[in-house]
Amino acid sequence: MENILNFVDKELSTSLDRLFDLLKIPSISADPAHQMDCCHAAEWLQNYLKEIGFTSAIHETGGHPIVLAQDLSAESGPHILFYGHYDVQPVDPLDLWDIPPFQPCIKIGKNKQKIIHGRGSSDDKGQLLTFLEACRAIRKQSGKMPLKITILLEGEEENGGEHLPGFLAEQKGKLFPDMAFICDTDMATPDIPAITAMVRGMVSEEVTIHAANRDLHSGIYGNAARNPIQLLAEIISKLRDKEGRVTVPDFYKGVPNIPIEIRQKWQDIGKTDAELLSPIGLKETAGEKAFKAVEQTWCRPSCEINGISGGYEGPGFKTVIPAKASAKISFRLVGKQNPQEIQKQFRQFVMDQIPSDCHVEFQSHGFSSAGMVALSGANLIHIQKALKDEWQQDAAIIGTGGAIPIVNDLQRELGVDSFLIGFANADDCIHSPNEKYNLRSFHKGIRSWVRILYALKN
Amino acid sequence: MENILNFVDKELSTSLDRLFDLLKIPSISADPAHQMDCCHAAEWLQNYLKEIGFTSAIHETGGHPIVLAQDLSAESGPHILFYGHYDVQPVDPLDLWDIPPFQPCIKIGKNKQKIIHGRGSSDDKGQLLTFLEACRAIRKQSGKMPLKITILLEGEEENGGEHLPGFLAEQKGKLFPDMAFICDTDMATPDIPAITAMVRGMVSEEVTIHAANRDLHSGIYGNAARNPIQLLAEIISKLRDKEGRVTVPDFYKGVPNIPIEIRQKWQDIGKTDAELLSPIGLKETAGEKAFKAVEQTWCRPSCEINGISGGYEGPGFKTVIPAKASAKISFRLVGKQNPQEIQKQFRQFVMDQIPSDCHVEFQSHGFSSAGMVALSGANLIHIQKALKDEWQQDAAIIGTGGAIPIVNDLQRELGVDSFLIGFANADDCIHSPNEKYNLRSFHKGIRSWVRILYALKN
Repeated sequence: MENILNFVDKELSTSLDRLFDLLKIPSISADPAHQMDCCHAAEWLQNYLKEIGFTSAIHETGGHPIVLAQDLSAESGPHILFYGHYDVQPVDPLDLWDIPPFQPCIKIGKNKQKIIHGRGSSDDKGQLLTFLEACRAIRKQSGKMPLKITILLEGEEENGGEHLPGFLAEQKGKLFPDMAFICDTDMATPDIPAITAMVRGMVSEEVTIHAANRDLHSGIYGNAARNPIQLLAEIISKLRDKEGRVTVPDFYKGVPNIPIEIRQKWQDIGKTDAELLSPIGLKETAGEKAFKAVEQTWCRPSCEINGISGGYEGPGFKTVIPAKASAKISFRLVGKQNPQEIQKQFRQFVMDQIPSDCHVEFQSHGFSSAGMVALSGANLIHIQKALKDEWQQDAAIIGTGGAIPIVNDLQRELGVDSFLIGFANADDCIHSPNEKYNLRSFHKGIRSWVRILYALKN
Repeated sequence: MENILNFVDKELSTSLDRLFDLLKIPSISADPAHQMDCCHAAEWLQNYLKEIGFTSAIHETGGHPIVLAQDLSAESGPHILFYGHYDVQPVDPLDLWDIPPFQPCIKIGKNKQKIIHGRGSSDDKGQLLTFLEACRAIRKQSGKMPLKITILLEGEEENGGEHLPGFLAEQKGKLFPDMAFICDTDMATPDIPAITAMVRGMVSEEVTIHAANRDLHSGIYGNAARNPIQLLAEIISKLRDKEGRVTVPDFYKGVPNIPIEIRQKWQDIGKTDAELLSPIGLKETAGEKAFKAVEQTWCRPSCEINGISGGYEGPGFKTVIPAKASAKISFRLVGKQNPQEIQKQFRQFVMDQIPSDCHVEFQSHGFSSAGMVALSGANLIHIQKALKDEWQQDAAIIGTGGAIPIVNDLQRELGVDSFLIGFANADDCIHSPNEKYNLRSFHKGIRSWVRILYALKN
């Protein structure tokens, strides 16, 4: 294994070249204009995996394609399914980027650290390549994989992941992994690796309120005609109460009470309110007053307005009362919260506030329930040891605010537990301008996977 | 005068050709991309006025140019200042137009009426041309104007009118009109001409709330980080109370109580709530519960959200917490409401609700106070007679919801009273897709001005 780790170190610059090739493909899954780019990214990965000796195929889904690659030649040891996604978030507002988002580069950050810049560098192209480059190094040095490996790469993670569950359902009876690895999460700190214990679910809704049958002159109809922006604002303002609690009926049904000892531990390894908020220029937590920021983001459900639009948004001023206004609203779920039920209750909550002469339209952008990850057994011990060997620090057990529906899908469709092991950091600006990934995360991430695969072989 | 009226009838189709030429110029004052089109429209009008024998000049303002034309050759009678604006509203949403907004055409409406379609047909190019075509007919037939005429055409009426007051201040001591005519208002009904007695003032504000120093991933920062869209929605929702009253402190200071007899009269000539709202697909009035729709729109101040923007507004979904969110908000003022004071109180009202770690930015898009129009004297009687001769109906005295700052500017800078006489109709869709102007309004509007100018000569 040492030879392989040395090979990883020696080959780092070519690993980086391959990452840059992938980062240059603008595979924005939410924007239909980039559909071909998503196909392009999938083909790039298919070829990559063929090249390192995996059987590799592209599966059309009706949405963006899924890449499935395998090397099942190993005689012994568990069968590992690795999951990553090649699609990325939209890049607007473009003017806030220091570099063109799809022209990746290396910059020197604080204390001389090398930083990889570009959309997808952290979420998730950089992370998924840590595993793929580990496989490449192992193949090149040892000629074969130590374990049976299946690699599943999807292209809709940032846009509802509509087609993945159906694809996994088709694999039932064909694919028999013993465990899954997902590389799409953060470390506890830039020095402390982490295994993520809880992932939140999600309900994404787009709400459009229709009032008058056309745009109106506010001078002629102002006061008299219902203003859908005003109405939408009133509804949004009622989504949280004075205590910061979400007011949708039965919203907190199924939310677990996190044991005090875990909350304690999180206080130690998690960020303080100030540590979390000051880097983004804020001071006060905005959510439930009864919880600290680390709890609000790791174990409490949330409601966020992700976008709003209505009336005249161009330069200057237009005295119009628009015919409609809309908002994109998402809920993060934990524990046993039921996404279908929350979608239903939310829609009723909105409809109850619509006057009889207006109407509302809902568009779902997908939903998933929260997941808890298995945290026991010999495998976990092997993985923790491998991570400690690489990072010289005990791996922390943490929660995540992000929704990773694949955890539930894999549990439901293939009956496997997932280990969420990622090397991103909270300041990577994923989903934001100037997304980055520490070169150290990329390098030691590759080395970590080599160690983990050999640890599980024994 | 009969010859002139006959000439107007005979020349109607060429009058229409000239209107179409003007309508084809996309002179959208709010959009910098159309700055040259505004200059183009001003030049078109300058040449038009030269051609009919007026001295005509373009005055640069730092914004869009002002056209000032004169024929002061008449020996007797009052000196008339006519005001109109050649700029138009933006045209979005484009997909709701039945025709390209700047390719005007005639369509046959209900009961075989001919209708002029196109942006600016009613507001204000069609209306201002009724006066200019009247002047043309008089010049062509009689060789000279019956009265001293000054024509003032601006290009920023739809975008705050920033530069007009300064221009008028410069004219102080050079320009001595006895009265002003403004053709930018509605008739009481398609058959009853109207003189508008009250125009509302306006305060236009753009509010931008800044929270985090960058866009955030709602999975990582949701709950904990302040969401500026949520904050903006909460502020907007507090702008009106349960009774529909605007909650900005001292907002109603200076709002006159309209005498019951005038409110009565408005009940007769004005539209019922149903008549006003059903054509736009609505049933319930949204403003102050204590007032009927006609009062809400003619004599009560208002607050409208004209636009809102924040976060991800593109297709699909993006789980972002934006760094900022903004809204365009306008107040219509009546009576002695003080625009500066209301702007100040509104800004304080907003600032009082901004958490210490967020900040707010205000951009003014102009303000003006309300105006009452002189409604007495021999001139009014002459004008009323002229309108009755043309329309065979007594001219109604009505209010308007629109802000027409020029009324105050002319009173303040040149000390003249304005008569607001327009031939538009409430269903002209001004500021909306499918703006139109009845051909009958255009035709009889030209004839009305011929009658009015001769009526004032005697």
